[in-house]
Amino acid sequence: MYQLYDYVTSGNGYKVALLLHQCHKPFRYIETDILAGASRTPEFLELNPNGKIPVLVTPEGHVLSESNAILLYLAEGTPLLPDDPLLRFEVHRWLFWEQYSHEPFIATSRFWLHLPNAEEFADKLAARRPGGLKALELMERHLDGRTFLVGDRYTVADISLYAYTHKAHEANFSLENYPAIRAWLDRVAAQPDHLTIENKMNA
Amino acid sequence: MYQLYDYVTSGNGYKVALLLHQCHKPFRYIETDILAGASRTPEFLELNPNGKIPVLVTPEGHVLSESNAILLYLAEGTPLLPDDPLLRFEVHRWLFWEQYSHEPFIATSRFWLHLPNAEEFADKLAARRPGGLKALELMERHLDGRTFLVGDRYTVADISLYAYTHKAHEANFSLENYPAIRAWLDRVAAQPDHLTIENKMNA
Repeated sequence: MYQLYDYVTSGNGYKVALLLHQCHKPFRYIETDILAGASRTPEFLELNPNGKIPVLVTPEGHVLSESNAILLYLAEGTPLLPDDPLLRFEVHRWLFWEQYSHEPFIATSRFWLHLPNAEEFADKLAARRPGGLKALELMERHLDGRTFLVGDRYTVADISLYAYTHKAHEANFSLENYPAIRAWLDRVAAQPDHLTIENKMNA
Repeated sequence: MYQLYDYVTSGNGYKVALLLHQCHKPFRYIETDILAGASRTPEFLELNPNGKIPVLVTPEGHVLSESNAILLYLAEGTPLLPDDPLLRFEVHRWLFWEQYSHEPFIATSRFWLHLPNAEEFADKLAARRPGGLKALELMERHLDGRTFLVGDRYTVADISLYAYTHKAHEANFSLENYPAIRAWLDRVAAQPDHLTIENKMNA
């Protein structure tokens, strides 16, 4: 059975849980309290020297990290990762864009706001705000008139971007002015075997 | 012929130029002065709504962005991208790690230091320093005893990490205490058809 080391509110861990669930791959959820140092223990650093969740251990014992790389590994050979070279390129492009131009702004802001000492992060939050707005505006323009991010079909690009976009309000980014994003979020949530982030540890 | 829109000192653009050169794919280099706003013109934003170089236009007219996604697209079917699922996963893992845990610290520091008003970035540079050191230490431990990053053969993971690591000194990160990294840099530079960053526009 797969074992997923993850932190309870993490969207990066949620991506992996959602994909495993939709691929009908059962997994054991191993809660890893990063605020209490659980991703800095010698045992955890043995799994991932980078000290970050999620970590996925496969039934064969392979240890995988970097959420979007895990998505590509698990989705290979499924309809969630197109074979066509250009469509596959587009999936890759969105996955790299997510990690560089979306996650550091929206996910990181959400993480700071959820900390007990959130008020100490006011300056940092303000500094990340323009990047988050730019990311949402780019998604809104792209999704206007499209069903999904790539090739009008549900792929791991949608899973990856869904994770933090659907919780953008918890990062103080309202989606009120982004109707195309909101309609896309609804389509993603309506996919067969959808799993909510709140249920990821009980899949 | 391929057309590469790139900024003269960019390591992200260099990755693409180096791979094109090593795959014997001639390209036209289109200098894009991002400091003068050349990546913010309506024409450029038409190519890449994210307003970033590099952009690669293929001979068929396909417009590609996100440097590491371009590497994966160009390397498909070559020895630079392994077919084995686990080795390919490892390549992906390094590419995502590069964009999240290496580039924002080392490349961004180097970029600020190269600006005419570099002295205004002292606080930001200090804030990015621990992340850069952490990245180099992780690479040093991984490369100690290994020939290349993945599977002991030269892949696009090496190309991607080489781009900014070999210029780390220009970001004020000395490689003096990283002998495994320095030996690996030498091995990468000794690969057939290597192209230096200084020659990328004349390949």
